[in-house]
Amino acid sequence: MPVLDVAQLTALFEQQFPQAIETGAVLEEVGDMWARLRQPIEHRHLRPGDTVSGPTLMGLADRAVYTAVLAQIGDVPLAVTTSLHIDFLRKPTQRDVIARAELLKLGKRLAVGAVTMYSDGSDEPIAHATVTYSIPPR
Amino acid sequence: MPVLDVAQLTALFEQQFPQAIETGAVLEEVGDMWARLRQPIEHRHLRPGDTVSGPTLMGLADRAVYTAVLAQIGDVPLAVTTSLHIDFLRKPTQRDVIARAELLKLGKRLAVGAVTMYSDGSDEPIAHATVTYSIPPR
Amino acid sequence: MPVLDVAQLTALFEQQFPQAIETGAVLEEVGDMWARLRQPIEHRHLRPGDTVSGPTLMGLADRAVYTAVLAQIGDVPLAVTTSLHIDFLRKPTQRDVIARAELLKLGKRLAVGAVTMYSDGSDEPIAHATVTYSIPPR
Amino acid sequence: MPVLDVAQLTALFEQQFPQAIETGAVLEEVGDMWARLRQPIEHRHLRPGDTVSGPTLMGLADRAVYTAVLAQIGDVPLAVTTSLHIDFLRKPTQRDVIARAELLKLGKRLAVGAVTMYSDGSDEPIAHATVTYSIPPR
Repeated sequence: MPVLDVAQLTALFEQQFPQAIETGAVLEEVGDMWARLRQPIEHRHLRPGDTVSGPTLMGLADRAVYTAVLAQIGDVPLAVTTSLHIDFLRKPTQRDVIARAELLKLGKRLAVGAVTMYSDGSDEPIAHATVTYSIPPR
Repeated sequence: MPVLDVAQLTALFEQQFPQAIETGAVLEEVGDMWARLRQPIEHRHLRPGDTVSGPTLMGLADRAVYTAVLAQIGDVPLAVTTSLHIDFLRKPTQRDVIARAELLKLGKRLAVGAVTMYSDGSDEPIAHATVTYSIPPR
Repeated sequence: MPVLDVAQLTALFEQQFPQAIETGAVLEEVGDMWARLRQPIEHRHLRPGDTVSGPTLMGLADRAVYTAVLAQIGDVPLAVTTSLHIDFLRKPTQRDVIARAELLKLGKRLAVGAVTMYSDGSDEPIAHATVTYSIPPR
Repeated sequence: MPVLDVAQLTALFEQQFPQAIETGAVLEEVGDMWARLRQPIEHRHLRPGDTVSGPTLMGLADRAVYTAVLAQIGDVPLAVTTSLHIDFLRKPTQRDVIARAELLKLGKRLAVGAVTMYSDGSDEPIAHATVTYSIPPR
């Protein structure tokens, strides 16, 4: 079960990742090996065709897995992303993006999470990502 | 050989991707099936540990392949990224990031590019990405 | 809903992919946008440490998504894999491997499926893959 | 520079991976952070359309990076693949497949290699893969 709750994780991000906070992503809920985030969509997140930009979704996926890892193991600030794979599936609408990350593996050295993203109000995925984090020795 | 040069591609991006211009990435050179971009690093691109953020590198890789595709086939504004894979290899310094994209395939429906990124002045890669674009029927 | 059932899909594979049949993978069930396969493990599928080889799991993932695509759209023999990404999560046991493929997208030109694999009798995933197929114009 | 040569690496594989030898892949040359392998193509490696099967190319990419890692660090039999990404670019011919693997990173815990594959006699790549290996503590 998680060792940090939504308030603790949000405070930790505000303290350690001031730039990341500027993305506007909001942690909504964490559970056993999962986390759900909401990305409000503003003009700066859009691309021609009024669709959400790829980098916005990639950053959200990265953050969602990082959040799920920290929720489980506590504050390990030197965990770093080693790889990210994303498939863009459908054109997002301009509504908020919901990301649900699930940890497929939480080992001593590597954590792997899968993230499915939706436009709020739809159940058809707009993107699916897998993200690997390297966890430093403790 | 390219059908658009650096000045034409830069103008095209300024016109169509005003938000993307805000990332600050600069197209330096295009050639036969390749493009080289420079990403100046500012405070907003950094993460704790004074390293370049993952989303900055992912956005740069995406842009580099898109640029290489447009250089070869001209203005096809509806080309969309269908997938991106990135391996983060070394901690970047705070210097500019140089991205060299090479098109591995430029088909009628799909284009695939590989991007290697370096901190300026170093020849050890900090990240390697492959990006697939879907090209609309013409 | 599927337009081909397990018996029809099995016959189609035996006819078109005689070499693939030699892998021994068995289609167990298909449903709306998903398929489940079983890979019996024999000596030739093992690696040192008595673990299932990576190529066995990669081939199974590829086949599982292809099966799910054909189940939905019927016999389209020229569909080809354009990319595959796999994360190996845990050491498999020597028991059969179960693969469950779910189609995340089934478009006119591209289909994307996610596959989760388990050693039979365990609910901890041993591998997770995403596979993209290009579907020829009809 | 490599600490094992072609003959030593070939003997090591024959001893430790008797099943892998059955794939028929031949190590041709190793150098500083790279290796080149040849995959003779037989009937069992083909798919309908007389093209080389995806699993054959995926297995070859995996082996090529493993070989390049062992060539540099010596016999570390517990190194395991943690992820593999492959883009299939062109239809292979029925000629031998040549795989050239280059190590992008060789760290204490992770090694990452990029592999480009060609049909013998052609300089247009048929597939590009990146493979990550986890290296056990020594």
